[in-house]
Amino acid sequence: MTRKLIILTDPGQDQAAAILMILGAPAAFEVLGLVATAGNIDLRHTVANCLKLLELADRPDIPVFAGCPRPLTRDLVTAVHVHGPTGLDGPDLPEPVIEASPVHGVDFIIDTLRKAEPGTVTICSLSPLTNLAMALVKAPDIAPRVHEIVAMAGAYFEVGNITPSAEFNVYVDPEAARIVLDAGIPTTLLPLDVTHEMLSTRARLDAMRALGNRCGVATAEMLEFSESFDLGKYGWDGAPLHGPCVPAYMLDPTIFSGRHVNVSVELAGTLTQGMTVADWWGITDRPRNAFWVRDGDADRYFALLLECLGQLP
Amino acid sequence: MTRKLIILTDPGQDQAAAILMILGAPAAFEVLGLVATAGNIDLRHTVANCLKLLELADRPDIPVFAGCPRPLTRDLVTAVHVHGPTGLDGPDLPEPVIEASPVHGVDFIIDTLRKAEPGTVTICSLSPLTNLAMALVKAPDIAPRVHEIVAMAGAYFEVGNITPSAEFNVYVDPEAARIVLDAGIPTTLLPLDVTHEMLSTRARLDAMRALGNRCGVATAEMLEFSESFDLGKYGWDGAPLHGPCVPAYMLDPTIFSGRHVNVSVELAGTLTQGMTVADWWGITDRPRNAFWVRDGDADRYFALLLECLGQLP
Amino acid sequence: MTRKLIILTDPGQDQAAAILMILGAPAAFEVLGLVATAGNIDLRHTVANCLKLLELADRPDIPVFAGCPRPLTRDLVTAVHVHGPTGLDGPDLPEPVIEASPVHGVDFIIDTLRKAEPGTVTICSLSPLTNLAMALVKAPDIAPRVHEIVAMAGAYFEVGNITPSAEFNVYVDPEAARIVLDAGIPTTLLPLDVTHEMLSTRARLDAMRALGNRCGVATAEMLEFSESFDLGKYGWDGAPLHGPCVPAYMLDPTIFSGRHVNVSVELAGTLTQGMTVADWWGITDRPRNAFWVRDGDADRYFALLLECLGQLP
Amino acid sequence: MTRKLIILTDPGQDQAAAILMILGAPAAFEVLGLVATAGNIDLRHTVANCLKLLELADRPDIPVFAGCPRPLTRDLVTAVHVHGPTGLDGPDLPEPVIEASPVHGVDFIIDTLRKAEPGTVTICSLSPLTNLAMALVKAPDIAPRVHEIVAMAGAYFEVGNITPSAEFNVYVDPEAARIVLDAGIPTTLLPLDVTHEMLSTRARLDAMRALGNRCGVATAEMLEFSESFDLGKYGWDGAPLHGPCVPAYMLDPTIFSGRHVNVSVELAGTLTQGMTVADWWGITDRPRNAFWVRDGDADRYFALLLECLGQLP
Repeated sequence: MTRKLIILTDPGQDQAAAILMILGAPAAFEVLGLVATAGNIDLRHTVANCLKLLELADRPDIPVFAGCPRPLTRDLVTAVHVHGPTGLDGPDLPEPVIEASPVHGVDFIIDTLRKAEPGTVTICSLSPLTNLAMALVKAPDIAPRVHEIVAMAGAYFEVGNITPSAEFNVYVDPEAARIVLDAGIPTTLLPLDVTHEMLSTRARLDAMRALGNRCGVATAEMLEFSESFDLGKYGWDGAPLHGPCVPAYMLDPTIFSGRHVNVSVELAGTLTQGMTVADWWGITDRPRNAFWVRDGDADRYFALLLECLGQLP
Repeated sequence: MTRKLIILTDPGQDQAAAILMILGAPAAFEVLGLVATAGNIDLRHTVANCLKLLELADRPDIPVFAGCPRPLTRDLVTAVHVHGPTGLDGPDLPEPVIEASPVHGVDFIIDTLRKAEPGTVTICSLSPLTNLAMALVKAPDIAPRVHEIVAMAGAYFEVGNITPSAEFNVYVDPEAARIVLDAGIPTTLLPLDVTHEMLSTRARLDAMRALGNRCGVATAEMLEFSESFDLGKYGWDGAPLHGPCVPAYMLDPTIFSGRHVNVSVELAGTLTQGMTVADWWGITDRPRNAFWVRDGDADRYFALLLECLGQLP
Repeated sequence: MTRKLIILTDPGQDQAAAILMILGAPAAFEVLGLVATAGNIDLRHTVANCLKLLELADRPDIPVFAGCPRPLTRDLVTAVHVHGPTGLDGPDLPEPVIEASPVHGVDFIIDTLRKAEPGTVTICSLSPLTNLAMALVKAPDIAPRVHEIVAMAGAYFEVGNITPSAEFNVYVDPEAARIVLDAGIPTTLLPLDVTHEMLSTRARLDAMRALGNRCGVATAEMLEFSESFDLGKYGWDGAPLHGPCVPAYMLDPTIFSGRHVNVSVELAGTLTQGMTVADWWGITDRPRNAFWVRDGDADRYFALLLECLGQLP
Repeated sequence: MTRKLIILTDPGQDQAAAILMILGAPAAFEVLGLVATAGNIDLRHTVANCLKLLELADRPDIPVFAGCPRPLTRDLVTAVHVHGPTGLDGPDLPEPVIEASPVHGVDFIIDTLRKAEPGTVTICSLSPLTNLAMALVKAPDIAPRVHEIVAMAGAYFEVGNITPSAEFNVYVDPEAARIVLDAGIPTTLLPLDVTHEMLSTRARLDAMRALGNRCGVATAEMLEFSESFDLGKYGWDGAPLHGPCVPAYMLDPTIFSGRHVNVSVELAGTLTQGMTVADWWGITDRPRNAFWVRDGDADRYFALLLECLGQLP
């Protein structure tokens, strides 16, 4: 059965890989629209990058909606140091011909959920959760209409990347993450705990390039660009490939394992703002509000990614 | 010259007095619309109360827009213990015949500011600032188009009412207040520091009732209802009449005195969440972002209120 | 009846005035010792200043004990900008001949309270509460042995001086203030709310100098030095004279009025660290743990101060 | 060469195992004294438990000093649910005949460090750091005289045990931990990251009991009592054996590996109070103030523990 998806995203190379993976599985996913988000880079660039990716995959039919250009209450923190000045450095993608919709991303989320049959639309988040949170504050009636949220967000055992205690997507807009986690919607999180097991080694990038199609080659080029920051930082065999964990989980949850736990976001700490606290050991009596993925099979994950990318032009 | 106003409000008896005061000064104010806000009572009631007040004043032409039913990141705290179960207890106002617009309050703010000449629309806030903050996050381009914000909000020397350190409008949505204060828009705040000087004494309420018109009598009845909480708490000669300070300031700023200072909102304290910290003595190097009204002439204030109420049916 | 006193102090000109006032009332006060505290200036200087003041007043028999050179958990913040490089600038006081005791101030507090009849020793605090808090953590058994704490500390309606929300003595060591307020000891606080009414006007300083004795003249010279900072900041007729409110309250409480309320200290806020939140209006259900002095009669206060200073050499 | 040790401890079964391990290596360690600390259980019990352990090991010559009965600024949280009503349940140890010293633990630390040659005394901490922090606030001159601090404290990759984000020893007195970490003393931390690798499996406990001496048998009985809580919580093959990591590290650091990093303590978070944030990946520019042990060889660790216990009566 096909899942209807709204994709929240701020590409970013690994978000791009996730979007392409989704587009490479058209039997599984019907993409209703991409909501561009300020995050890895400013909104102007994430809108452009969404459009470029749709053209790369020959899917100009999918609409792109610009969301909020800033987080709810904080100044925008980007990750240009990782992703390069366009946010999508690596391959030389042409300026897009297609254009974004004039409708605001927040309203696209609200309108789509109100029009669809309840429980038929999945929110797939590869970015800070700003626009979904804004939609939930503006129109809380949409919450029970969401089928599920599947989000790359947070860290517990792997603790943090943008700070020693916070993962980037949550850190950029912790209030948004808190709003989403408190909304009573079935939620699955793919945190650093699992994405740090998913390393884009030399062999895996070579296999991607060897697909030979333009989407495979471009993905390899993007990841080769962005991995250099993480390789220098971690000293691992490859950089963690975060984003595609989200479609991989939706396509084949048996690749992963996790637990239903309480997940909360620290908003007030001096050192720990934006930390996701997962009550993995069930110490508190806070309610279980998310499925927290802790482990995955990296070989099966990359095989699935290759299979999807191979379906694209 | 007539000021174009967007009114943010959650009536509430003293918000009602402020709205009626504005409607009683049609040469001074052109009301573009009322944005009903969750605050003193839930959104359903504040929408209804806005409609009732417009019918009471015979102004069914003014549109009412429902805003967000909740603050940005926190659970809604109301003040039903002060305002009664309808939020507007006291007079027996009929159920309204007119209806609210289908447009969301946040979008009314954005659309109105984008369509108007820059610098021609004043935001008059009698409530938590949720909807203006949401508009600023959704569409930051509107900020430079606002002429001025005049808001009943905050407390410094009078410190707090809903808690020992926070004023109700800011406490209910401190993140919204922070967003608004950081938006770079000319802002005047009428805090408890001044509203606690404006006591609705027996003689002043009698004068209101003696106007004899239905709006004067209804206002007196409303304030007689809501004052009982404050009379018991403070032991003063009358309850502070907060809301009408906003139109009074716009009609005649010479009634008031204050200073341009930095005003910030505490979001993180254990005891002080939602406190407005006004740097009255210029101790810090934080930028001056608001005009903080500290004193006013209560006799002139109530005289002006009477004059306006007297113009109404 | 004579009160036995332990004085906690960091002179500082207005602390000096308070100490001299106490020494000028020997029928009322038996001073067991001065505990020098880091605060207005570093510990080395406050020890020296205590010794200088005892020599000035011809009371070399009173012992001085050096306390902790730092607050419990924070870096020391001083007020050298107000008090000058010695902390006691103004008169030219000779280097002291007498010396401090080798006993630590914290142990002097503990040992004195353990040896005295329970309920016979008053703690008189003119400084951050570091050493009393340390004594209470080290030896909580002393708490029920204290007769009363009378402290210059905090601010509520007058809000703050070192920051827009915190008074200096509490700000320097908020954790210490919290520990002391939570210790279950009868406590009276003289906050900025009342000390800001006690202005050392020209006429009052002239009267002090006109006493003609060396202690009166030196006090006038000290206050003339330290007042310049406050005169520039507040634009008032004189600087607030904080410290002597403590002995004045003990000598004649009828000069003052206040309420038994809950007083808590904010430890976690971003803008409000070290704020004392007094629940003046009884909004919360937090227990009443202190008598908060809000008002006083400035003329009677300065008359009493003059009377005491006049008894000294 | 023999290391002179001051041991800070709140036994607790695994603290007891650590103390016995130290006593079983007299060529390596000269124990100057035990400072009993409030932590796993109240101070009265930890004092008694220290005395019992010294009698068990036939070392009544080592003095025990009672420290503070409470943390610096917080109410005491104990772990009676793990350790039983005496804090040392399991074996039936007789009431001690020897008595604690009348000297306060804080003063023992200060006096010992001031009298010893600088750089010759190691602080070995198996408990909250209250008493060392108090000594550093009371007498900061001792800091450069400490050779090294080796402490069981904190958690980063293993995150927390008493809450989802905090390890017990730091959580009980986070201000104390912050003071110690900021004191500029060479410090090695053995956090949950490594102690969670050190599981007291059935075979390891059997080997301990099989030593046949009264100290080996008592240790096995103690750990069999306390492990049941952790076995139920974690579902592992054995409970983490935290405390003996401290002497094991001092006896043979080659068993362990780690990094010099910055370690800070969150004091202000809502969810994360008492969390130790280790900047393992060097993301911040905060100074490196501790050696953080992340991994160890469990077999060599337990072998070393057995060897030491075997030397005892």
